[in-house]
Amino acid sequence: MSRTKTTARDIAMKGGGYYSSATAGAKDVIDGATPMVLEAIAAMDIPDDGSLFTMVDMGCADGGTSIGLVGTVLKEVRRRAPSRPIQMVYTDLPRNDFSQLFRMIHGQTDIASYFEDIPDLYVFASATSFHKAIFAPGTLHFGFTATASHYISQKLGVISNHVHMVGAQGAERAAYEAQGRKDWEVMLTNRARELVPGGRLALFNFGIDEDGRYLGNTGGISMFDTFSEIWAELVDQGAITQGEYVDTNFPQCYRTVAQFTAPLKDPGNPVYQAGLRLEHVETRIVPCPYAKAFGDHGDPARFAREYIPTLRSWSESTFMTGLSAERPLEERREIIARFYDAYQERVARAPEGHAMDYVHIYLICSKA
Amino acid sequence: MSRTKTTARDIAMKGGGYYSSATAGAKDVIDGATPMVLEAIAAMDIPDDGSLFTMVDMGCADGGTSIGLVGTVLKEVRRRAPSRPIQMVYTDLPRNDFSQLFRMIHGQTDIASYFEDIPDLYVFASATSFHKAIFAPGTLHFGFTATASHYISQKLGVISNHVHMVGAQGAERAAYEAQGRKDWEVMLTNRARELVPGGRLALFNFGIDEDGRYLGNTGGISMFDTFSEIWAELVDQGAITQGEYVDTNFPQCYRTVAQFTAPLKDPGNPVYQAGLRLEHVETRIVPCPYAKAFGDHGDPARFAREYIPTLRSWSESTFMTGLSAERPLEERREIIARFYDAYQERVARAPEGHAMDYVHIYLICSKA
Repeated sequence: MSRTKTTARDIAMKGGGYYSSATAGAKDVIDGATPMVLEAIAAMDIPDDGSLFTMVDMGCADGGTSIGLVGTVLKEVRRRAPSRPIQMVYTDLPRNDFSQLFRMIHGQTDIASYFEDIPDLYVFASATSFHKAIFAPGTLHFGFTATASHYISQKLGVISNHVHMVGAQGAERAAYEAQGRKDWEVMLTNRARELVPGGRLALFNFGIDEDGRYLGNTGGISMFDTFSEIWAELVDQGAITQGEYVDTNFPQCYRTVAQFTAPLKDPGNPVYQAGLRLEHVETRIVPCPYAKAFGDHGDPARFAREYIPTLRSWSESTFMTGLSAERPLEERREIIARFYDAYQERVARAPEGHAMDYVHIYLICSKA
Repeated sequence: MSRTKTTARDIAMKGGGYYSSATAGAKDVIDGATPMVLEAIAAMDIPDDGSLFTMVDMGCADGGTSIGLVGTVLKEVRRRAPSRPIQMVYTDLPRNDFSQLFRMIHGQTDIASYFEDIPDLYVFASATSFHKAIFAPGTLHFGFTATASHYISQKLGVISNHVHMVGAQGAERAAYEAQGRKDWEVMLTNRARELVPGGRLALFNFGIDEDGRYLGNTGGISMFDTFSEIWAELVDQGAITQGEYVDTNFPQCYRTVAQFTAPLKDPGNPVYQAGLRLEHVETRIVPCPYAKAFGDHGDPARFAREYIPTLRSWSESTFMTGLSAERPLEERREIIARFYDAYQERVARAPEGHAMDYVHIYLICSKA
């Protein structure tokens, strides 16, 4: 659900271990951070004392993008503590396809799983939101999440001039930032309660880097501005109403580095007081695989054709939700198709500058 | 998956908290055994010491049939041990609809959930087979399973004269009984390893009672004999081949009371040696809700129309699997439809004696 709808299902259907480039991009983000995660694990005291060791992947979707990292981490824990039973817990929202996740972990897809390689390993799933308590206090050793915490926990007021809070102004933007701050603190406070002393979190999230860059906005054409412009064109063309434009808002907050780290550095903050500390922070850009491929093949139509479906996979529900429920479903579907067709035509006509580069803020935290 | 494909999804779609009679039957089995389960819980030492308490429902399907019992048990544990975090773990095979399970537990369906009523409760799912280790050693307090352990863990040889082992003879029947014995011992040995000392298991399974009765065979017309007869008629009619008839076998073993209890009473058995003991055994018959309703309405056509879909829901995959894969899918579907139509016509023509009464062997075990 959370990780831009990763597509291990598609991969499995394509067979032969083929990874779509959509998944490859999100997987690149995680795989590229493996040394950072192993460093966090290395800094942990993991006595070989026979007690349970528990790791969680929060917002796992189908687990396809993190399977390499999770296998690497669990094998390292097994190496350092041969006597400790390991629990690996995957979480996402109830509507997530947990069956697909379990089929992959248990080796029933084309994707290689670590499960049979690690003795004394027990895998579970939870559908409890990471804004709530997932685990009993003091029972979690290592928490991981990638590309999930930008979703806010409740619907907010409208953004009148844009579709995403990155383009919002004044009080409208402030409302998203306030909810983003609250959600982040609630998420961290819950994890602080669950972590054992010395436990670690590796939190890789969409955010706004030191140069103001964010997903799809790294110097070329802004993806979210393009979404907003084309959606507004549909108003001008009479295809949707101004009210629908205003009602269309991604339920997301992109946080700055300062916003991500504040609760971990302010001694007055409940997160800090719960014992959570910042060990490491950095920002990284992972290039859009479609734009990269376009650099090789140079075919604008092909680029547009390959690029739009990945944008659509995670953004469609937001635009669909923005449309009036009084429109027949078929009419709503036609509007959505027209919207993405327009985006595709725009890219095919003038491809330069279009790219969904990933901008992540990488945090390592420890529990005091 | 396991519990005759319970239909909370159908219920949710029907809305308004309506329970189909199919689910009502399987739910009756569990609800009726609630006092027995509470007695097992009462016999347990559950100190209020702040440590984790873990319960499992193995072969949970969508969780709909056990939700009442699980809520009752967890509330009793919470009452006796207010300080203990409780973990509730649901297990089934990877293809199970875990999303539906989680949606129900987290209150996203019409079915009332206990989740918000019990503080300090953490819900998880596992897709590890109960023939394998689901939990770390010594971490499970109470294990429950209903109507799941009759599935055997691997495909066996054919049954030449019948479709189910209850109708098999000689070496063919012995092969099923041997696999059934092995699976049962492996299942119990795994649970013995996982249970804490003093932990309990409540195991309610399809079986053969002291009078030779089993599911759909309680004195009237035998359901499995009827399956076999109609399937054989399709051979006579040239609709399927004799080879397909022979290849059609439910992957199930119905065990007798003696077979269920032997590993728990024989000091030489690995299960007994692992510390598992029989506390209680009894057999019960829970009447078929369709036959019961027929007693009220007296309409044979209605009875047949309502009765066959529930049989079909859990038996169809076995008959489908028995057909040659060389037949086009559409042709296989037509044969299956014809098969159940014939069953329905048979019931409508002469309804007396048809009934899918549930016959369960109820076991309570303790870990020494």
